Amino acid sequence: MGDGKSGLQLRSLIKGSGELEISLVDVPTPEPAEDEVVVRVEATPINPSDLGLLVGAADMRTVKASGTRQSPVITAKVPEVAMPAMAGRLDQSMPVGNEGAGVVIKTGSSDAAKALMGRTVAMIGGAMYAQYRTLKLRECLPLAAGTTPAEGASCFVNPLTALGMTETMRREGHKALVHTAAASNLGQMLNRICLKDGIPLVNIVRSKERADILRKIGAKHVVDSTAPTFLNDLSNALAETGATIAFDAIGGGKLAGDILSCMEAAINKTAKEYSRYGSNVHKQVYVYGSLDTRPIELPRGFGMAWGVGGWLLSPFLQKIGPAEGAKLRQRVVDELKTTFASHYTRVVSLQEALDPANLAVYAKRATGEKFLINPNKNG
Amino acid sequence: MGDGKSGLQLRSLIKGSGELEISLVDVPTPEPAEDEVVVRVEATPINPSDLGLLVGAADMRTVKASGTRQSPVITAKVPEVAMPAMAGRLDQSMPVGNEGAGVVIKTGSSDAAKALMGRTVAMIGGAMYAQYRTLKLRECLPLAAGTTPAEGASCFVNPLTALGMTETMRREGHKALVHTAAASNLGQMLNRICLKDGIPLVNIVRSKERADILRKIGAKHVVDSTAPTFLNDLSNALAETGATIAFDAIGGGKLAGDILSCMEAAINKTAKEYSRYGSNVHKQVYVYGSLDTRPIELPRGFGMAWGVGGWLLSPFLQKIGPAEGAKLRQRVVDELKTTFASHYTRVVSLQEALDPANLAVYAKRATGEKFLINPNKNG
Repeated sequence: MGDGKSGLQLRSLIKGSGELEISLVDVPTPEPAEDEVVVRVEATPINPSDLGLLVGAADMRTVKASGTRQSPVITAKVPEVAMPAMAGRLDQSMPVGNEGAGVVIKTGSSDAAKALMGRTVAMIGGAMYAQYRTLKLRECLPLAAGTTPAEGASCFVNPLTALGMTETMRREGHKALVHTAAASNLGQMLNRICLKDGIPLVNIVRSKERADILRKIGAKHVVDSTAPTFLNDLSNALAETGATIAFDAIGGGKLAGDILSCMEAAINKTAKEYSRYGSNVHKQVYVYGSLDTRPIELPRGFGMAWGVGGWLLSPFLQKIGPAEGAKLRQRVVDELKTTFASHYTRVVSLQEALDPANLAVYAKRATGEKFLINPNKNG
Repeated sequence: MGDGKSGLQLRSLIKGSGELEISLVDVPTPEPAEDEVVVRVEATPINPSDLGLLVGAADMRTVKASGTRQSPVITAKVPEVAMPAMAGRLDQSMPVGNEGAGVVIKTGSSDAAKALMGRTVAMIGGAMYAQYRTLKLRECLPLAAGTTPAEGASCFVNPLTALGMTETMRREGHKALVHTAAASNLGQMLNRICLKDGIPLVNIVRSKERADILRKIGAKHVVDSTAPTFLNDLSNALAETGATIAFDAIGGGKLAGDILSCMEAAINKTAKEYSRYGSNVHKQVYVYGSLDTRPIELPRGFGMAWGVGGWLLSPFLQKIGPAEGAKLRQRVVDELKTTFASHYTRVVSLQEALDPANLAVYAKRATGEKFLINPNKNG
């Protein structure tokens, strides 16, 4: 480990020529201001939400490696059709990494900053794929004694997203919820929250194997969208749970519409009066991912009381305000080794993160594969 | 005109066998309770929102007329594929007609009811395609002296829907709006409201002729979705107005997605910073009609801050509460002969409404054709 005055930082650049370039640059560590600290980053996960910025719309089949072992460079082609969507970031060398954890090695002059010296903290705020990170106190979450950076690396994105789903459910007046791509790391975390909080959860997965993963951790309602009985199974699970809100990671194709149609069918099983506008129970699907990039296709058989929309963590946290957000973060710290435990299949250095063999695995966003970067591990 | 003790009422029945039957039945007029009145219905419009109940999913190419001149009967076939959606109303003879106007001919014992004797009132509450209607005071809206039933027949559905759009726009924090199928009776009314209230309105129409209709009444932003320059024209109009909410009567196909994509493009024209999640400005499309019954197709090029959902007048009025609703109704009464004036192409009796030649015209929901029924006109 170095002295912290400078360190490597991962950068993603998409050039106007249509080439993606991922590289490591040596950057000076900014001096901490009064309410800031410098953290030696020791663990930072590769989340699906990081991949958008890391690889953009590049075609991963065109990946080429160059550079040296200590300073590798990855290049890949961005298809011409995808370039307009990249317009906002062209020719800007962008740091990557939403969250991470590490040890405070230097602080600003405020008492609150000084109090963190030597502490292990979780961090949010971008540019975490780096050896050192100077950031504000409010972007740090001090971890309990005995917690390692690896254990605290994923304190924000998945835990707050999962809590954001149950909170949104409550705030919008629903009593049970649906989740798709439900065997993911996030999905398993959501199951643990719902089991603990007594919230009925309908899990939709895309294979029998993933259904088994969830049943093993205690999930009660698991529906396989590849089964011939899917729509019937889903309607039954919705009738049993009364779920009228769904969080969907898939995004494209017919799934969101199927969920709304089956919710309406479940509601009408107990309806007493005919309404030509369908039930007056509001049915909501929030799309928070794009595992399927095709258009969303919504038929019109579920009445008029429905909504489909995008959902993101940051606007949700802005909406609930800092006091409510702090409560959610405290719960994450309190239950970090149980409800909010994350599991990683591999720990890599910054250099290893740029190895095409690793890139090919984590860029697939496959359920069950999760990488953790330790930027201070020797590459 | 009769003595009001009984009168004809239009009924729509879909039989389990798959046959639609529309007929006229003679029903006794219920005695008014303390807070009720009996109204002789003299004008009741055929709105698009009435047609769903009136003809259901029947195939209008299979219409047959039978019965007598005074008591005609219409039958038509409901396609088998559409029967499941009719399950809730099978074998129930249903009265039709959301709104209307007429003269109070009998009242309940309360002072408030007695005060309406002889007054011309607008009415909401269903079963208006009838010669007499007993209803509660709160379902009546007394009209200003000198207002005819024909002038007051459409006080609720179109005026409150149009006001509901501008109110929803304000309540959800938008400053301008988009409307589709914009040359309709409702669309012209919305233009008059927006011109009067200084609200920028983007009108989307499906022909040059309809664009001309709107320009003639003073509409500033009119975009023709059949023009080759549609997407560019729409983006420009959205950038000029800043509209980030749309009310869509079409519902099926690509239009809702096109509106969201063009809103995002308009927002990004002035964006200062790259966000891989798209702009953080919420973009909303409310679907309130189904002129196109195909699925809604939403591509994913407009970021994460978006919503698409159903919108109906009744839940909106419930949400804002009776006091706010009363303000909107008073505005309708005050501006009934200007902003909220409706125009009809034909006035028919109940019997004439069951003439296949008339049915063929109004069941098409064509812009520019609007029928008014006078149930007390001699058939």
